Amino acid sequence: MSVNSFGRIFTVTTWGESHGPALGATVDGCPPGVALDEGAIQPFLDRRRPGQSKMTTQRQEPDSVRILSGVFEGRTTGTPIQLTIENTDQRSRDYGEIAQAFRPGHADITYHLKYGHRDYRGGGRSSARETAARVAAGGVARAVLRELAQQVTITGYMVQMGELTIDRSRFDPEEITRNDFFLPDAAAVPDWTDYLTRIRKEQDSVGAVVEVLIQGCPPGLGAPVYGKLDTDLAAAMMSINAVKAVEIGEGMAAARLRGTENADEIRMGPNGPEFLSNHAGGILGGISTGQDIVLRFAVKPTSSILTPRRTINRAGEEIDLITKGRHDPCVGIRAVPVAEAMAACVILDHLLLDRAQTGGQRGEIG
Amino acid sequence: MSVNSFGRIFTVTTWGESHGPALGATVDGCPPGVALDEGAIQPFLDRRRPGQSKMTTQRQEPDSVRILSGVFEGRTTGTPIQLTIENTDQRSRDYGEIAQAFRPGHADITYHLKYGHRDYRGGGRSSARETAARVAAGGVARAVLRELAQQVTITGYMVQMGELTIDRSRFDPEEITRNDFFLPDAAAVPDWTDYLTRIRKEQDSVGAVVEVLIQGCPPGLGAPVYGKLDTDLAAAMMSINAVKAVEIGEGMAAARLRGTENADEIRMGPNGPEFLSNHAGGILGGISTGQDIVLRFAVKPTSSILTPRRTINRAGEEIDLITKGRHDPCVGIRAVPVAEAMAACVILDHLLLDRAQTGGQRGEIG
Amino acid sequence: MSVNSFGRIFTVTTWGESHGPALGATVDGCPPGVALDEGAIQPFLDRRRPGQSKMTTQRQEPDSVRILSGVFEGRTTGTPIQLTIENTDQRSRDYGEIAQAFRPGHADITYHLKYGHRDYRGGGRSSARETAARVAAGGVARAVLRELAQQVTITGYMVQMGELTIDRSRFDPEEITRNDFFLPDAAAVPDWTDYLTRIRKEQDSVGAVVEVLIQGCPPGLGAPVYGKLDTDLAAAMMSINAVKAVEIGEGMAAARLRGTENADEIRMGPNGPEFLSNHAGGILGGISTGQDIVLRFAVKPTSSILTPRRTINRAGEEIDLITKGRHDPCVGIRAVPVAEAMAACVILDHLLLDRAQTGGQRGEIG
Amino acid sequence: MSVNSFGRIFTVTTWGESHGPALGATVDGCPPGVALDEGAIQPFLDRRRPGQSKMTTQRQEPDSVRILSGVFEGRTTGTPIQLTIENTDQRSRDYGEIAQAFRPGHADITYHLKYGHRDYRGGGRSSARETAARVAAGGVARAVLRELAQQVTITGYMVQMGELTIDRSRFDPEEITRNDFFLPDAAAVPDWTDYLTRIRKEQDSVGAVVEVLIQGCPPGLGAPVYGKLDTDLAAAMMSINAVKAVEIGEGMAAARLRGTENADEIRMGPNGPEFLSNHAGGILGGISTGQDIVLRFAVKPTSSILTPRRTINRAGEEIDLITKGRHDPCVGIRAVPVAEAMAACVILDHLLLDRAQTGGQRGEIG
Repeated sequence: MSVNSFGRIFTVTTWGESHGPALGATVDGCPPGVALDEGAIQPFLDRRRPGQSKMTTQRQEPDSVRILSGVFEGRTTGTPIQLTIENTDQRSRDYGEIAQAFRPGHADITYHLKYGHRDYRGGGRSSARETAARVAAGGVARAVLRELAQQVTITGYMVQMGELTIDRSRFDPEEITRNDFFLPDAAAVPDWTDYLTRIRKEQDSVGAVVEVLIQGCPPGLGAPVYGKLDTDLAAAMMSINAVKAVEIGEGMAAARLRGTENADEIRMGPNGPEFLSNHAGGILGGISTGQDIVLRFAVKPTSSILTPRRTINRAGEEIDLITKGRHDPCVGIRAVPVAEAMAACVILDHLLLDRAQTGGQRGEIG
Repeated sequence: MSVNSFGRIFTVTTWGESHGPALGATVDGCPPGVALDEGAIQPFLDRRRPGQSKMTTQRQEPDSVRILSGVFEGRTTGTPIQLTIENTDQRSRDYGEIAQAFRPGHADITYHLKYGHRDYRGGGRSSARETAARVAAGGVARAVLRELAQQVTITGYMVQMGELTIDRSRFDPEEITRNDFFLPDAAAVPDWTDYLTRIRKEQDSVGAVVEVLIQGCPPGLGAPVYGKLDTDLAAAMMSINAVKAVEIGEGMAAARLRGTENADEIRMGPNGPEFLSNHAGGILGGISTGQDIVLRFAVKPTSSILTPRRTINRAGEEIDLITKGRHDPCVGIRAVPVAEAMAACVILDHLLLDRAQTGGQRGEIG
Repeated sequence: MSVNSFGRIFTVTTWGESHGPALGATVDGCPPGVALDEGAIQPFLDRRRPGQSKMTTQRQEPDSVRILSGVFEGRTTGTPIQLTIENTDQRSRDYGEIAQAFRPGHADITYHLKYGHRDYRGGGRSSARETAARVAAGGVARAVLRELAQQVTITGYMVQMGELTIDRSRFDPEEITRNDFFLPDAAAVPDWTDYLTRIRKEQDSVGAVVEVLIQGCPPGLGAPVYGKLDTDLAAAMMSINAVKAVEIGEGMAAARLRGTENADEIRMGPNGPEFLSNHAGGILGGISTGQDIVLRFAVKPTSSILTPRRTINRAGEEIDLITKGRHDPCVGIRAVPVAEAMAACVILDHLLLDRAQTGGQRGEIG
Repeated sequence: MSVNSFGRIFTVTTWGESHGPALGATVDGCPPGVALDEGAIQPFLDRRRPGQSKMTTQRQEPDSVRILSGVFEGRTTGTPIQLTIENTDQRSRDYGEIAQAFRPGHADITYHLKYGHRDYRGGGRSSARETAARVAAGGVARAVLRELAQQVTITGYMVQMGELTIDRSRFDPEEITRNDFFLPDAAAVPDWTDYLTRIRKEQDSVGAVVEVLIQGCPPGLGAPVYGKLDTDLAAAMMSINAVKAVEIGEGMAAARLRGTENADEIRMGPNGPEFLSNHAGGILGGISTGQDIVLRFAVKPTSSILTPRRTINRAGEEIDLITKGRHDPCVGIRAVPVAEAMAACVILDHLLLDRAQTGGQRGEIG
């Protein structure tokens, strides 16, 4: 299986480099008959797009997605869907130093070691720009979920940026789309703005924690041992550029808990089983419980900063390097729509897998 | 691909339930000509085996592995290796309540919902016993690594149990195998023993954090986008029972760092590039740098405790449940050899994948 | 994916060598709740078993299958099913010459070249004995088909052995199980018996053509381009030892036909579309039409014969070799139940795949 | 894994419909550093392109391939290669009848049954036009083979068209590229031309047999049981539109042979083992012997003919249908470059797989 692919039934293979002519995603296994056009995907790309605020890089690209196959007269045909986004911002410029130097914190050196030959322009394949293709694929997944599992909602938001964390008592999902940080707390926006402005002025960057909340996921998605729902969600998040950790439910904090605290007790509610808590984050034994699925991941600070860093070049010379250009001071912000897209793909894939194995039937209780 | 499998070239499919006649692993893609017999695998199983100390469950099983195929006259033949471990401790006993009840924190309820029909004895497929098969497969991976990449060492150890954390200034790898906790700090053992004894007496359990250190991994293993080395390591760890979070390098702490702190600077050393720090945990852009690979994961507290918990049964009746039997008060301890095994499989798989794509050649520097 | 596996959802990995302690199949992706025990599988193994007539090898093995996992209280649990068959006929004997020599027509030389080290006893992994594991897996597939698509029947039979071909005007499916040749024509049995007896006395062997007829297969199974139903059926048959050709519908004869003859015309019948002929063999564009699926494959003559053949050994010495022991004079006979088993696995796999992508819904006509 | 993909390491996923904006192939797993540009691929597309002679359809398309990713400064980077071919001949026309009717012999009815909704224009995904994407991917495989296994040559040619077969005594590989039939026999061209002209005038079409000869393939490619080289080659050929049978070596004729005739005897030659014949077609036990690999496949007659055929439409009405337009009277001709491309992909994939498992080392003889 392609190392640039994910999914078992609903498979996504992304392709393309930051400064090549285009990038995109090849999506296979999509159910037929689903309403889909560019208009259903574009809003997700627009959310991810840089250059929208001072909080993200100023690279200006329309990121217009085109569907080249798999859709006919506004509905999917069940054949592969090719999604393409042209790279319009391919200014011919001098890549002199960057072509030879290895930017610290970037994949430049590992790509060079592994492949010998790499597209160094803008980071090539390792650029965060690749995530646009994932967001487009996520748009397809969302369109399918809308028809097969209408009740599923997937919401990403920031819960930490550097030293700042959200106040969960003020959590308001309505606010998330109203500010530049995907922050579920309107009152915090001014502080976050000041903080990030200060970091940028210091020619520095900062890390972040993003949380993804999946609501309405039916119970029974996942598999016992390796194709676990949490394994696949963790892999999906970890595969996003700059992600260094993934948590499900209590996450790292579970290490500090007691069994009496952590295991979610169960009672009968009016519509079936009800859990009295959700330390598990909606997944038990790799299979969804029907509760909210809650996951978080940490994004490292942007490695491209204007402060000079020590490194070497291909010739083995020691140099000091400044990564010019306007880069996101907190790349975690743009990871929010990417994480939502990945989660949508994983949930849909497991929904289809479950349909294959069990026909979607559920064991009865009561 | 089987949802009970992992790996792309070196593939492992585990099978078996806690109280069935046997469990095991089907290993394919193993290079031929590698020295292998049961004696090379058994020590890893012995390390994982419960019943060895008061710190783990008292279930007594020899966990003797048998190789049924793929090895001839002490060397692998390149054909599938079948590893089997008989379940000798299948005491016929009354599963009355457990057959009907859903133990909180366990997969009982999700298996029931998904499959309708499940082997409830000892948790069936969701039992930690399944990890014995992984450890056996890891023994094969280690035997191959010994021939293909002799310098690779993989060491797991506990760094946290409940409120206790290790003092890294006293880190001594020699100590890890000398105590019941896989603790790299001899001085801490008495405290950890007291702590866990107290928790057990309180009929409770506690979570843990395990760290895995991979040394000697060559640079260039991994792939850009989805088949990343960190993605695969994270998935491998997350697929272990009770794991709720995975960190690479700085992990969650990366969120709090600045770009000036986090990006590992590079200088030339006597043998090529040298990184001045290792915040990345040995992986950049999904590809190994040649530094130590460092990952951690959190294990939730054992859900099987003697304290009564509220739950329901298949009939939808609300009940209070005590999980009888002697269970690990900290299941994280036994996760150590499992994590090592999974890491060995992932590293070998990527070594073989890299051999396929690049022939193992590396880009030159200097 | 394991090179010893087949299937996408219902996956089968076979393992084991001819003279190792055991061989078997690891089956994953099986739907839960399906009635299954050894008794449901054993009859298929009994059909394949050698030593039953003078027409097949006299190796006497009970070929008793054991289910080690994935089944609980007589029904599948949805977790991996491990099927094991012990090799009881492992007589310790002198493999002196065969250990060094490469039997012409056998995989001895290619295994040696590829793997360097091989289990030469009885052909090791390349022995037709491996097909017992496939037949066992096919027994599981049949049990599932019985519940999910009761109307599907899969019937294999011989249509050619050396110079003899069946007279289709006397085709009687009832006869297939009543003779040693899986012949659908009782009147032909004496001739076939005489013919094969003569070939054996001449210390020779002969090839065969087997036909598989799949009736009751619903329309809509398959996929457009590479995961075609005919591609997967062809691969399944070609993967059986000694198979050298596969035909669907008209097969090779299609080359001689005109478009006016070959394209199956369609009319409306009482229950929907009806094809006026079946040159296509039940598959159009890789997807089942709902007609009978008809495929054939050629099996080469057994390479193990008592007539001396020229060959070499590992030392590069030219030798003459007689393959001692009692071998099938026509290995094609035993390929019949193997082909049925493979067909059952492929049909089930595509049924589950279709359920994943389309939910089993069909486009309407009329 | 995507059902529109093939390959394990060198993976190809094709996408696109006959009359959509574009079609193409996503190629992953390509080794880095290989010289590649559009110019290396275009000649293969030009060979496949229709409209070049009276012997193939007159649809006129330049079929210009564009590389959108994975290649930088004329060499592959090891990241996914996106190959795109625009559909320039998308004349807006009335698809009135064809939109509703099911053309006999075509996938129209099976696509409708499976997907409910299909792109009927020109057959959509089931059009032979999809094979252009395979040919482009084959061009990449050839470029890699040129660097990794320079001695490998892959040559396809026609050996039968309807009632005409080639005279192997006049076989001349040089002639293949000199005529419109890929015929290795110049003297036969006039007869073949007359024959096909007559068939076209009769508003009919005819089937064909194509042979593919792979020379210089190293021994040791393949795998024992399911990932056999012949299995994968057979699947690759069977996946081509309109193919109804595949033969390796003796193929169907093996059924008529005796063991004394069929098993290829071995002697020592100056450079190692030499086979005295090649009934096996270069593959034993699923693994290449180092001999020529010889395979053949039958292509059914084009289903689109000007003679009216009985069929039905979506409304369930019985109609008579003429497939207008200029279609290939023998679609087998254009299958030649497609088969070569598929063979190149399979050989490369197994070369890389072998490198993964054995490191390319071979067992010694003598």
